[in-house]
Amino acid sequence: MTNIAILGFGVVGSGIAEVIGRNELPIRRMTSDTINVKYILDKRDFPDSPYGDRVVKDLTQIVSDPEVSVVCEAMGGVHPAYEFTMACFTAGKSVVTSNKELVAKCGADLMNAAKKHGVHYLFEASVGGGIPEIRSMRTSLAMDTVLKIDGIMNGTTNYILTRMKNDGISFDEALKEAQSLGYAEANPTADVDGFDAQRKIIILSAVTTDMLASEEQVYTETMRNVSVMDMDAASRWGGTVKLIGSFRNLGDKMSLYVCPRFVSYSDPISSIDDVYNGIKLTLEMTSDVMYYGRGAGSYPTASAMVSDVVSIMTGAVKAELHMRWHKAAEDFVVPFDDLTFSYYVRTQCDSCRDAIENAKLMIGDVRELSGSPKGYAEFVTGGVKESDMKKYISSGSLGKVESLIRILD
Amino acid sequence: MTNIAILGFGVVGSGIAEVIGRNELPIRRMTSDTINVKYILDKRDFPDSPYGDRVVKDLTQIVSDPEVSVVCEAMGGVHPAYEFTMACFTAGKSVVTSNKELVAKCGADLMNAAKKHGVHYLFEASVGGGIPEIRSMRTSLAMDTVLKIDGIMNGTTNYILTRMKNDGISFDEALKEAQSLGYAEANPTADVDGFDAQRKIIILSAVTTDMLASEEQVYTETMRNVSVMDMDAASRWGGTVKLIGSFRNLGDKMSLYVCPRFVSYSDPISSIDDVYNGIKLTLEMTSDVMYYGRGAGSYPTASAMVSDVVSIMTGAVKAELHMRWHKAAEDFVVPFDDLTFSYYVRTQCDSCRDAIENAKLMIGDVRELSGSPKGYAEFVTGGVKESDMKKYISSGSLGKVESLIRILD
Repeated sequence: MTNIAILGFGVVGSGIAEVIGRNELPIRRMTSDTINVKYILDKRDFPDSPYGDRVVKDLTQIVSDPEVSVVCEAMGGVHPAYEFTMACFTAGKSVVTSNKELVAKCGADLMNAAKKHGVHYLFEASVGGGIPEIRSMRTSLAMDTVLKIDGIMNGTTNYILTRMKNDGISFDEALKEAQSLGYAEANPTADVDGFDAQRKIIILSAVTTDMLASEEQVYTETMRNVSVMDMDAASRWGGTVKLIGSFRNLGDKMSLYVCPRFVSYSDPISSIDDVYNGIKLTLEMTSDVMYYGRGAGSYPTASAMVSDVVSIMTGAVKAELHMRWHKAAEDFVVPFDDLTFSYYVRTQCDSCRDAIENAKLMIGDVRELSGSPKGYAEFVTGGVKESDMKKYISSGSLGKVESLIRILD
Repeated sequence: MTNIAILGFGVVGSGIAEVIGRNELPIRRMTSDTINVKYILDKRDFPDSPYGDRVVKDLTQIVSDPEVSVVCEAMGGVHPAYEFTMACFTAGKSVVTSNKELVAKCGADLMNAAKKHGVHYLFEASVGGGIPEIRSMRTSLAMDTVLKIDGIMNGTTNYILTRMKNDGISFDEALKEAQSLGYAEANPTADVDGFDAQRKIIILSAVTTDMLASEEQVYTETMRNVSVMDMDAASRWGGTVKLIGSFRNLGDKMSLYVCPRFVSYSDPISSIDDVYNGIKLTLEMTSDVMYYGRGAGSYPTASAMVSDVVSIMTGAVKAELHMRWHKAAEDFVVPFDDLTFSYYVRTQCDSCRDAIENAKLMIGDVRELSGSPKGYAEFVTGGVKESDMKKYISSGSLGKVESLIRILD
């Protein structure tokens, strides 16, 4: 019997207990062992839960019990999750987590501390909920080179964009609906301003490079400005708009960014709708591999955490790619302004012909989009350096640029 | 240094050598070791290959060399691959394979023999080329219960269906094109008659149940009869036609079948086009997880085989779900006639009103499809037992049924 403790008995924490309870047979088939939830740390009491008698209020009880070998941290937030995780390591306990904020911010420190104490820190559930992409990257795909990662890493924003696309409702309406359905928080900034996706692309890029970027190194653009007009333009162009977290392997450097993108219908990412997530890896030898699934939710997230517990129990973790993250040096991440993109541009103009002509003169490779609303010119460009694009826009010769969306390559 | 041998130096076999050669660094990072291709078994000589000096003509040289610990079987076909694999096991060598025919036909015997000799038999590359779905099923997802598997498991037929859908060309034309591009064999029966997909769904269902079905237990329908009219009907219905391999967990039994299906646009499988494969698992706790990638090709397949070699080198394989396949008893697989499907039906009729009325009388839940070509009635049904559907059709009251395609649930 392997004894575990759960920190935080909310949606995910209670899911862990339930996944363990309902899957005793497959867990035994996998580990020849059982998992016992010995403690649950939570401020609240759960008198009606079958696990109510295991609730404790003080971490000391957990870290001082030598029977507990693995702790599932499902608290979220950096503090006190960081201190609690460190205390578990010091006490010789491995930790599995779904806490993307903590892993993205403190993953390097935590991984080093775990190593120092001879324990494990696993975080499959921190990206893509039940989608097992991190273990794949650390096993099946680890002997190939990841060239690109692109993904829909946030279900809330994908739900909003799907509603805007399919039903022509505005961002504000779609957000309100997502809030009323419980998909979006009252304060939706982590989702819609891209911070949730930012944390996830930081984590995935660290899995492949061992370099943990800081939030400041990741250009992160809100999706609040995406409009139904953008959706309509994307559809005329041959695709749709998605909020994408991206990583590019640039040899001895990398780039990382989160922003709304035009995604062509020919890219399978374009067809991932509603609250689903999709993560596409482009590898040197294996070519494209995409994972699709529920990026959040109690059971998918809890299942991923239990899979991490099992990987510690079976010893599989020792055979997975050993990770030792370092904080990425400032110049390891190429500044966003130095990157090159193709753009969709919509500009309000008195003379649209002039705007297009000016764009062609300045940018060269410019293709006008047909079917634009009256008073607007729309075009897509070939590759332009981000800093140059900014200059062209501020020059005023393109008219009043109302929308600028990068095209996913 | 880990010494391996490659059996068969064709597209996949030579890919293995190349993947190993080009990924020395990531392999070392993963294993703290290197892989050396010591022997290549092939009837041909390869004087121009950098590996030409390792070609041998006799398996004895490989099995009698104690330095060789892993053998990559990339020969294809049942004989002599079966005998060669057994000889490797007897000599204490693990075998990794991309040979789906061999695994589907003899997997139970081979796995038992490997176990008896204390070695491993791995086959990640046998399904979905570079898509790492088998390892996921044996690790991350192993403590959940697989309820359903549905997948596009053959790239050639998916290419043909994509061309028919997008460009309105006939099956025969699309097949010819696929042959001229090298996607389809001169004798395309393994692909278009569903046998390739059949082998793959047999393997995936065995991974999740430990029960290996025989070919006779898997209803397998050709996709030669899918027409542009079917594609058009599917589009009016709100989806497309795909050749799908399916597994259903029915508690103490299972069902397995390969046939063309109507797939709704709301299902992510519908958007998998060209030579790509997609495998969707529906799990009790994790919900849907889909894998997408190149189902074939030299590098993706070879990469998957090298990942199996690495898993033996690191010992990860010991921590993966232990499999011991048994041949599925006859009554473990529910007869296809006893299953229930929703159907798309197109019937040639003098009086289409009569055909629809008769369908409603016999079947009950019948919805007419609008926009049918003149002289045809088209409808989709609610759930009907396969054997009943056959009776309705042979009764003649539905007119001359020209097309019957099951709808993916």
